[in-house]
Amino acid sequence: MKKQVLVIQGPNLNLLGERETGIYGKESFEDINNQILDCACELGFECDIFQSNHEGDIIDKIQQVRHNCDGIVINLGALTHYSYAVRDAISSIMIPCIEVHCSNIYNREDFRSKSVIAPVCAGQIAGFGKHSYFLALHGLAQMV
Amino acid sequence: MKKQVLVIQGPNLNLLGERETGIYGKESFEDINNQILDCACELGFECDIFQSNHEGDIIDKIQQVRHNCDGIVINLGALTHYSYAVRDAISSIMIPCIEVHCSNIYNREDFRSKSVIAPVCAGQIAGFGKHSYFLALHGLAQMV
Amino acid sequence: MKKQVLVIQGPNLNLLGERETGIYGKESFEDINNQILDCACELGFECDIFQSNHEGDIIDKIQQVRHNCDGIVINLGALTHYSYAVRDAISSIMIPCIEVHCSNIYNREDFRSKSVIAPVCAGQIAGFGKHSYFLALHGLAQMV
Amino acid sequence: MKKQVLVIQGPNLNLLGERETGIYGKESFEDINNQILDCACELGFECDIFQSNHEGDIIDKIQQVRHNCDGIVINLGALTHYSYAVRDAISSIMIPCIEVHCSNIYNREDFRSKSVIAPVCAGQIAGFGKHSYFLALHGLAQMV
Amino acid sequence: MKKQVLVIQGPNLNLLGERETGIYGKESFEDINNQILDCACELGFECDIFQSNHEGDIIDKIQQVRHNCDGIVINLGALTHYSYAVRDAISSIMIPCIEVHCSNIYNREDFRSKSVIAPVCAGQIAGFGKHSYFLALHGLAQMV
Amino acid sequence: MKKQVLVIQGPNLNLLGERETGIYGKESFEDINNQILDCACELGFECDIFQSNHEGDIIDKIQQVRHNCDGIVINLGALTHYSYAVRDAISSIMIPCIEVHCSNIYNREDFRSKSVIAPVCAGQIAGFGKHSYFLALHGLAQMV
Amino acid sequence: MKKQVLVIQGPNLNLLGERETGIYGKESFEDINNQILDCACELGFECDIFQSNHEGDIIDKIQQVRHNCDGIVINLGALTHYSYAVRDAISSIMIPCIEVHCSNIYNREDFRSKSVIAPVCAGQIAGFGKHSYFLALHGLAQMV
Amino acid sequence: MKKQVLVIQGPNLNLLGERETGIYGKESFEDINNQILDCACELGFECDIFQSNHEGDIIDKIQQVRHNCDGIVINLGALTHYSYAVRDAISSIMIPCIEVHCSNIYNREDFRSKSVIAPVCAGQIAGFGKHSYFLALHGLAQMV
Amino acid sequence: MKKQVLVIQGPNLNLLGERETGIYGKESFEDINNQILDCACELGFECDIFQSNHEGDIIDKIQQVRHNCDGIVINLGALTHYSYAVRDAISSIMIPCIEVHCSNIYNREDFRSKSVIAPVCAGQIAGFGKHSYFLALHGLAQMV
Amino acid sequence: MKKQVLVIQGPNLNLLGERETGIYGKESFEDINNQILDCACELGFECDIFQSNHEGDIIDKIQQVRHNCDGIVINLGALTHYSYAVRDAISSIMIPCIEVHCSNIYNREDFRSKSVIAPVCAGQIAGFGKHSYFLALHGLAQMV
Amino acid sequence: MKKQVLVIQGPNLNLLGERETGIYGKESFEDINNQILDCACELGFECDIFQSNHEGDIIDKIQQVRHNCDGIVINLGALTHYSYAVRDAISSIMIPCIEVHCSNIYNREDFRSKSVIAPVCAGQIAGFGKHSYFLALHGLAQMV
Amino acid sequence: MKKQVLVIQGPNLNLLGERETGIYGKESFEDINNQILDCACELGFECDIFQSNHEGDIIDKIQQVRHNCDGIVINLGALTHYSYAVRDAISSIMIPCIEVHCSNIYNREDFRSKSVIAPVCAGQIAGFGKHSYFLALHGLAQMV
Repeated sequence: MKKQVLVIQGPNLNLLGERETGIYGKESFEDINNQILDCACELGFECDIFQSNHEGDIIDKIQQVRHNCDGIVINLGALTHYSYAVRDAISSIMIPCIEVHCSNIYNREDFRSKSVIAPVCAGQIAGFGKHSYFLALHGLAQMV
Repeated sequence: MKKQVLVIQGPNLNLLGERETGIYGKESFEDINNQILDCACELGFECDIFQSNHEGDIIDKIQQVRHNCDGIVINLGALTHYSYAVRDAISSIMIPCIEVHCSNIYNREDFRSKSVIAPVCAGQIAGFGKHSYFLALHGLAQMV
Repeated sequence: MKKQVLVIQGPNLNLLGERETGIYGKESFEDINNQILDCACELGFECDIFQSNHEGDIIDKIQQVRHNCDGIVINLGALTHYSYAVRDAISSIMIPCIEVHCSNIYNREDFRSKSVIAPVCAGQIAGFGKHSYFLALHGLAQMV
Repeated sequence: MKKQVLVIQGPNLNLLGERETGIYGKESFEDINNQILDCACELGFECDIFQSNHEGDIIDKIQQVRHNCDGIVINLGALTHYSYAVRDAISSIMIPCIEVHCSNIYNREDFRSKSVIAPVCAGQIAGFGKHSYFLALHGLAQMV
Repeated sequence: MKKQVLVIQGPNLNLLGERETGIYGKESFEDINNQILDCACELGFECDIFQSNHEGDIIDKIQQVRHNCDGIVINLGALTHYSYAVRDAISSIMIPCIEVHCSNIYNREDFRSKSVIAPVCAGQIAGFGKHSYFLALHGLAQMV
Repeated sequence: MKKQVLVIQGPNLNLLGERETGIYGKESFEDINNQILDCACELGFECDIFQSNHEGDIIDKIQQVRHNCDGIVINLGALTHYSYAVRDAISSIMIPCIEVHCSNIYNREDFRSKSVIAPVCAGQIAGFGKHSYFLALHGLAQMV
Repeated sequence: MKKQVLVIQGPNLNLLGERETGIYGKESFEDINNQILDCACELGFECDIFQSNHEGDIIDKIQQVRHNCDGIVINLGALTHYSYAVRDAISSIMIPCIEVHCSNIYNREDFRSKSVIAPVCAGQIAGFGKHSYFLALHGLAQMV
Repeated sequence: MKKQVLVIQGPNLNLLGERETGIYGKESFEDINNQILDCACELGFECDIFQSNHEGDIIDKIQQVRHNCDGIVINLGALTHYSYAVRDAISSIMIPCIEVHCSNIYNREDFRSKSVIAPVCAGQIAGFGKHSYFLALHGLAQMV
Repeated sequence: MKKQVLVIQGPNLNLLGERETGIYGKESFEDINNQILDCACELGFECDIFQSNHEGDIIDKIQQVRHNCDGIVINLGALTHYSYAVRDAISSIMIPCIEVHCSNIYNREDFRSKSVIAPVCAGQIAGFGKHSYFLALHGLAQMV
Repeated sequence: MKKQVLVIQGPNLNLLGERETGIYGKESFEDINNQILDCACELGFECDIFQSNHEGDIIDKIQQVRHNCDGIVINLGALTHYSYAVRDAISSIMIPCIEVHCSNIYNREDFRSKSVIAPVCAGQIAGFGKHSYFLALHGLAQMV
Repeated sequence: MKKQVLVIQGPNLNLLGERETGIYGKESFEDINNQILDCACELGFECDIFQSNHEGDIIDKIQQVRHNCDGIVINLGALTHYSYAVRDAISSIMIPCIEVHCSNIYNREDFRSKSVIAPVCAGQIAGFGKHSYFLALHGLAQMV
Repeated sequence: MKKQVLVIQGPNLNLLGERETGIYGKESFEDINNQILDCACELGFECDIFQSNHEGDIIDKIQQVRHNCDGIVINLGALTHYSYAVRDAISSIMIPCIEVHCSNIYNREDFRSKSVIAPVCAGQIAGFGKHSYFLALHGLAQMV
């Protein structure tokens, strides 16, 4: 049976390709998601992508998949920097979670260099644009 | 006429009994809620329990009950540490609110030792496991 | 064709006129909204008012109007002080946004004197009660 | 055989009923102590109350009872905020200790919101006036 | 009888139109002052404008007008960030004072995001260029 | 009937005249106390001097005199910098208390420039050697 | 020949008796100055009083008197908290300087509890209202 | 012609497989290096691995390859947290550099969560054990 | 005539052998004290050991021995971290004082890594269990 | 035509040769100024020296020369550490400004190691006594 | 077979006897090393002394001896305060390491009171001049 | 006999003319060094230039020249901000040392505005490009 992986896209990531294209590039959110699905498929994963601007929805989703998912790739957007509630959701399940950022969060505004979820994630990948997701899937493939 | 009390359960508390059982114990969320209802009943309260992983839902709920509730017992989970919006909801109503934590939030990660809602609550109880709720109800019984 | 303006009211502002009336005055939220609509109308704006206690709803709303709105007036309530996700929503659209506070946020609790959205807003107005909204609309009229 | 409980009253608590009655109420220290004894009695405890303005006396007392006491309820007064020596005394014995405050220490002066003994206590109760003691005894009854 | 209003222009504001025109625009200080006078006139104010690079002169001025002025609009320039003496002058008179900044002081150097006079002013307006003054006069018109 | 005044000498002050004479001078503790008594006598006070190296003793003393004393002059020595318990003792009585230091505590080690009792004292005098006590008595004479 | 003493009154102190009378009392600045002159006279001083709202004037004055003055009493008002330039003026002359405050600067706003001139003054007196000046003159009489 | 890539191994990494195997695993440094070479080979890179415990050697190496290398993968060990000199070496060349850590540096000692080279690297990968290197090579393959 | 040495044991050290034996070992306090006396004897010292849980008693003791003691070895327990009063006692006598800790205070709780007495002690020894005392005596033997 | 240079001497520098001669040397202010003029003359500059103890005067002066001056050498004295208003004056003109200090400001009091004008000056020279001025003139000669 | 011990002397310690003799004494580095060797010999150790000004050399050395050494005495000089790389070297071997300082590092510059290697050493000895080494060897003798 | 001067060039300065030419200019390291030698020659110095990327080499060099050098000019590159070991090397010799930076280190990244060697250098020169070296040599000429 195939391994299940969930890719979570946090607030404002649905505007990828439209928002701050200097930093994030011009490919649309849908295009990138399709490439993520392709990459997951090649790695033998069954993959679901979930986007929401709502912290609560993301927590609900993490809880729902906790018994039928083998790994999570999460780009939490700006929630990265203050959502201790998502952190608790991640740490209360038994599934490895990879934190992903398209941009290098360490050379932008000060507040972006602190991630409150990093201590409960298994790994972190930042700075490779859309490839950050693909690398995370590869990394996850080694863990699950 | 009976006094009304609302018990609010914040993000991830619905996983009680399943999540970090070393800290929180193994009784299920439903079991604990039933015991809370029993305790409230014994104290002569009419009691409602509300759980949500959504900050906004919790604010909505607090606002809804503001004219027909006599006391609130709130375990805000990780929102305790940053939700100034729930704080404002609490301080904008006239109802005494008791902050509750099952674990001793003062000997865990640093970020857990600061509660942003404590200054607008009437009292705080932490560290007694499920009994924190029962003690809070007893405390509330003295106030309302 | 008329310019479109969106007025966003954050958490707990729907209790205006009822909550902490010493600070915020006694006019009801509806009354103030009507006066905002009148003021916008006089300035030649078509105006929509949106209130929510949910951070995610506010982000959704900002994203929805991004192609058919000319300016935003936003009173984010307590989310002002920690919602980097709303900040990103504002900075990812091309529309000038005016931050508004009824009270003088600089002579209240310490945490209120820091706004995380101020750096991505075009201007800030604080301390004029309901008139803060009207002044913001006037200011916006100069920009759009 | 009955369980033994020790209630420790720290510096200046002997002036309860006389000092800052706006915060602490007007019942005398003796009256409150009697009610504490009654409450302990009802819970089946044998209870001793010890008050001192001397950090050293409190440490001596904690050490003395360490082999013949089942629980401690402690209101350390202002020593709460700097007495690492009492903290060490508490952590060097095997007896659960409940930290108690009559007032809500989180909405007073800044220095009062940090307790150096909280990390070594089993639980904390604050803000219920004299009832804080009674709730602590109830909480202790669940633990011992 | 007409209401009196004083507009105070702090250090280096006399170089408006010449200094950092990318931030402040190219209209001359005199032109902007004339527009301020016009705006005040329309609102029914008698208006005086006072510019100085000297903290002491500004304090002297505030003291002089304290018995025959109804409102103050003040752009204190860089003194905003450290002049507790001007702050005391403002707080020692009974006249509402509106703090004004042409630029958005919250997205510039760190030191500019802290105003020591904000807590004693009635309101603050920042980021609207010369319109910040006009909006302040409108705001003042509601207060006096 | 004469006014009663208590002069409290904190830890290590009994070594005055012997300890760090470069800072504190060479007159003995007894000599200085005698001069304090003389000065108090001239001002029409009945005066008691109390020295202890024990925080608890100082608190006990302050509590004992609370009904039969009109003013306190206190040099708390190094306890000045951390004894919140003495602070509470001072703030729980109705008697004006003058904080005294022989040396200028503001040009010595960093830790000496913060006094935790200053906010609850009526006044502070520092830097005049033994004359600090005499000036404090004169100041007290104006208050009681 | 008589000793010369200079009393310096900093920014806004000329409004004494008029400004924040709850803190500073209702006697006029002139009345208090006259009492200061009387007190100095009784102590055998020749006394000059100098008030200015200008930091530079105060520095000029300190420099002017440096060869024909025996002591300075200085209430620097809000300049106390940031004027390193006045500090340097004081430290560059050979004359003992007593820092004076009418109010207890340690129980007001946070910024008032730090004096940048304290380390270069001989002594500090705070909290005795107008008597702070008289005590300072007495203290100075012991030093010069 | 093949792309050149340099893998830099900082202080103490030569003890991989021997040191703190609970965190880093038990494969030897040589084994891991061989796997890195294999991975680079598969990706079409010509790859060199350089290990040193000397900050200066690492700077020298970075300078030497600056004209004949297309990408750098760097695990700087503990130098990550303070070597601004290596940071300057990286930022003074035109070659993309990927920061790599085997362990999750965000859930270990505090000092490990700050990287001084992150702001000048193109991307960062942490937490995947030896796979962190492989992922970095894949990421680099997208960039060069 | 023999050199006199005083060994001071601070709060809770009398529980050595009983308290946190994982850190401090299982030998009793009496056993360790006897070994200290033996060691001192071998070094030709006359040695006194003094234990107290009272800060004031320790200050009294230091003052008493100041004319007839040649060296002090002090393990101040938790008072190490805040007792500026003991610090002043040490610095007001002419006797070299060696600070001793059984455990390595630098790899425990944060608050333990700061000693307020270290700057006035001649030397510090930490981490050798009971041998810390013996090494301190040897060190003292070189100084006196 | 000769290049114009302005040398600004801030508060208390007129006391050079008289004040803290251990740090600043014994040559009089006039002597040093003459040597500065000589040095400027040799470098082909026309040079003006301006001293004031008034922040406002220094700002006025900088503004006045902004159209007929080619370089500024400024020793701002203690204003260096807080005068953001002088900083703004410097940054609002197009003339290179060299910050000068006679003493090494980095090994004196803490507050002296932070210059608020350094970020807007072209260069900084400190520690060479009067030669700091000469070196600054030489440096300026390279720039203008 | 004899126990092996390595004594590491960090940067600038080779100048002992020549550098800052007021703090470190006048005996030459060679003399002190010889005494260290004698002391080690008496304790039955085979002892090697290694000095380097190079962080990398010290790390190399620690790695080299990791299989044939029983204890390390290390005076890391100024590297004590920032070399996390040496810290990692120490923590990656199984050999007890004693941190040594000749001077009392707690009463010198601020930066010297923080040791980054202390948490991974077994013990620390400071303030006994050359005797610090001898005491460390004695302490080591108890451990190995 | 001629005075000897050593010019030390720290890490990455050998890339001058190649690295970040926007900040440092385009002249090659060799060209600048030759100009430094010429300047030194004109001032009558015998001059040696030493570059290394190794902290240890720089310390070795400073120690080697300590008996046959009259002055040091040092541009320590990024080591400026953390190398307490070089600081100790400088402070342990008797030779005046001038700290030099080509760029204005005060308007770049935050970490660059703190120099750990400044307190032990005689003077500091920053912001004049290559001329910083020449000015330093001139300044040194006045000192030696």
